[in-house]
Amino acid sequence: MTENKPDEVLKKIDNMSSADYYFDSYSHFGIHEEMLKDEVRTMAYRRAIVNNKNLFKGKVVLDVGCGTGILCMFAAQAGAKMVIGVDNSEMLPMAQKIITANNFDKTITLIKGKMEEVVLPVDKVDIIISEWMGYFMLYEGMLDTVLYARDKYLAPGGVILPDKCSLYITAIEDLDYKEEKINFWNNVYGFDMSCIREVALKEPLVDVVQPNMIVTNDCCILNVDIMTITKDQLKFKSDFKLKALRDDLIHAFVVYFDIEFSKGDKPVYFSTGPKAKYTHWKQSIMYFEDHIKIQQNEIITGTLDCAPFDKNHRDLMIKLSFDFKGQQMSNSAQLEYHMR
Amino acid sequence: MTENKPDEVLKKIDNMSSADYYFDSYSHFGIHEEMLKDEVRTMAYRRAIVNNKNLFKGKVVLDVGCGTGILCMFAAQAGAKMVIGVDNSEMLPMAQKIITANNFDKTITLIKGKMEEVVLPVDKVDIIISEWMGYFMLYEGMLDTVLYARDKYLAPGGVILPDKCSLYITAIEDLDYKEEKINFWNNVYGFDMSCIREVALKEPLVDVVQPNMIVTNDCCILNVDIMTITKDQLKFKSDFKLKALRDDLIHAFVVYFDIEFSKGDKPVYFSTGPKAKYTHWKQSIMYFEDHIKIQQNEIITGTLDCAPFDKNHRDLMIKLSFDFKGQQMSNSAQLEYHMR
Repeated sequence: MTENKPDEVLKKIDNMSSADYYFDSYSHFGIHEEMLKDEVRTMAYRRAIVNNKNLFKGKVVLDVGCGTGILCMFAAQAGAKMVIGVDNSEMLPMAQKIITANNFDKTITLIKGKMEEVVLPVDKVDIIISEWMGYFMLYEGMLDTVLYARDKYLAPGGVILPDKCSLYITAIEDLDYKEEKINFWNNVYGFDMSCIREVALKEPLVDVVQPNMIVTNDCCILNVDIMTITKDQLKFKSDFKLKALRDDLIHAFVVYFDIEFSKGDKPVYFSTGPKAKYTHWKQSIMYFEDHIKIQQNEIITGTLDCAPFDKNHRDLMIKLSFDFKGQQMSNSAQLEYHMR
Repeated sequence: MTENKPDEVLKKIDNMSSADYYFDSYSHFGIHEEMLKDEVRTMAYRRAIVNNKNLFKGKVVLDVGCGTGILCMFAAQAGAKMVIGVDNSEMLPMAQKIITANNFDKTITLIKGKMEEVVLPVDKVDIIISEWMGYFMLYEGMLDTVLYARDKYLAPGGVILPDKCSLYITAIEDLDYKEEKINFWNNVYGFDMSCIREVALKEPLVDVVQPNMIVTNDCCILNVDIMTITKDQLKFKSDFKLKALRDDLIHAFVVYFDIEFSKGDKPVYFSTGPKAKYTHWKQSIMYFEDHIKIQQNEIITGTLDCAPFDKNHRDLMIKLSFDFKGQQMSNSAQLEYHMR
C-alpha cells in the first residue's frame, strides 16, 4: 500500500459516486461507523486481542477484511511482530492513512485485493483475525474467505480469532410488528398490495426482537469450529425442536448467533440474541402465514436448511419446515426465505 | 405490461439477488414501504389528486416513476379517463399486479422503461404527476426526467402536480451530534481516524434536525416553477443571508424543501423542514470546521452553488461559502459537499 499518497487517497474518495458505493458498500465510512460504534462487537475483539498479549507477542497476524484497520492496530498493541491486513474495498487506502497516523507502519502492512488473489509477504501466519459475520451470521459469505486464508496461510498450531460460532433458532409472538411489516400490504391507503406481502413474507427481516416476545426455548442449529470446518459444511441442514415456555401465539421464527474467542488465557464471548445487549446484527425474523397456538411444554419440530443462493453467493436461501401438533391446533408448513 | 404473467412476476422477484438491488434499489419493496408509510408525503399526493376531481375528471394522466402505482390509482379514483405509469424498476411488474388486483386495468396502463425511451399510447397528456424528490430535493436527479416528460408530452394548458417547489437554508447549533458523527473519528478506541473525519465533513448528513437547534431565520435559495423551469436552471447558484434569532453557536447549515400543488380548487402544500412533521426526507445537515459564535440579529451572508456531479448525475456537488463578521468573532469559509 505504498502506491497511494495521502492526498491521492482523499482525492480518490472525493471522486467516488453513489454508483461506486453500490459496488463496494464497505468503501463508505458510514458502514464502518456503524460497526465501530457497535461496542459489543468492537470491545469483544479488543478484549480478545489486547487482553491476550501472551497469544500475540512476537507473532505474525493476518486480518481478513481489515476495513479501517482497527483489528490490525489491536493486534499491534497486543505485541504482534507483524500484522498483515487484507481488504478489497476502497476503504483500504484510508486504513493505510490511519495506520500511518497512529505510527504502526513498521508493524502493520496493508494489502488491497481479494484474499484469494493477493500475495502475502510471508508464507505462513501464526494467527488469523477477522470480523466476517453478516446478518444471519452467514449472509455475505465472508467466512468462506477466512477458511481459504486458514487453509493457505495458517501455520501448524496456529490460531483463528474468533474460533467458534453458533447459530440458534427460537420462536416469538409478534402480532403487532407482523401487522406493521407484513399485513400492511393487504390495505395500503385502501388498495390491495398483497402481492408485495407475498414477497415480504419470503425475506428474513433484520430487526430487534424484545426478550418478552420469546415464546419457546432456543435450539442450536449450527455449531462451527472455525479451526476445522470446511466450506461445504456451511451449507447445512439441521433439525430443531422448540418447547413452549408459556401458552401463547407464535408468529415468527428468529435466528441469531453467538461468537466465541476461546483461545488464550482470557476467552471472550458475545451473543447477538434477543436477550443480549443490542448489536448492529440485531436478529433475523422469519414470519409465516397464520400462526401457531401453543401451550406450555408443547413442542414444535422442524428443519432448517441454509445454503448460499446459487446466483449470488453473498445471498442466503433458507428453507424452513415445521410441524406442530398441539392440543388446540395443529399446523405445519414448508417455508422458503431469501436473504439479500 | 402484458408480457409478465402474475406467476412469472413473483418468480422473477424470487430470483433477484442483492446485486440486482444494488443496480435498482427501487425494485426492493422496502424503499416503497418507507415512502408509502411517509404519510406527510403520501397523504399530500392523495389530497392533491383525489380531492381535486374537477382537475382530473376525464383527463389523460402520466405518472413519471410510478413505483407501486399508488399515484396512478389516486388519479383513477379522481376520475381520470386514462392513466399511464412509467417506471424502469423491477417493481413495475409488481405494480401491474396491484393495478389488476384493484380492478384498474381499464384505466391504468403501465410501461416499463426509461421515460426518455418508452413509447406512450398517446401523443399528449393533460396532467403529469410525479413523486420525484430525493434528499436535498434534487438528489437522484429525477426532476430532469419530469421536465423531459413535460416538454415532450404535456398538452398546451396541461398541468403538473406538484407544480412548485422551494429549497431553503438555515443554520443550527448542533454540538452534541457533531461530536457523535464528525469528531468521533478523532479518537476511535484511542486511535486517530481523523482522515475519515475529513471525508465525513464533506458529505451532507441526512438526519432529523430538532426545531430548537435552529439559530437563524431561513432563506429560500431556489424557487422552482415546475411548469416553466429548464433543466439548466436546476444547476443553480444563490446568495443567502441568515439573521440570528438568538445568541448561540452555529455548527452546521441545514437545507430542506417545501412542495406545493397549487393547481385545482384545493391546493396542497407540505414542508420537509425541521419545524414540520417528520418525513422520510428528513433534512440535509452540512457541518463545517469550528463554529460561528453569533449574537442575536447578527447576519451570515453566503452563497450556495449546486450542480449534478459530473461523473454521476444522480449525485450532487454543493459548494457553500459563507462570511460572518460578528461582535465576538469573524469567520468565513469555502466548503464543498458531495451528496452520494
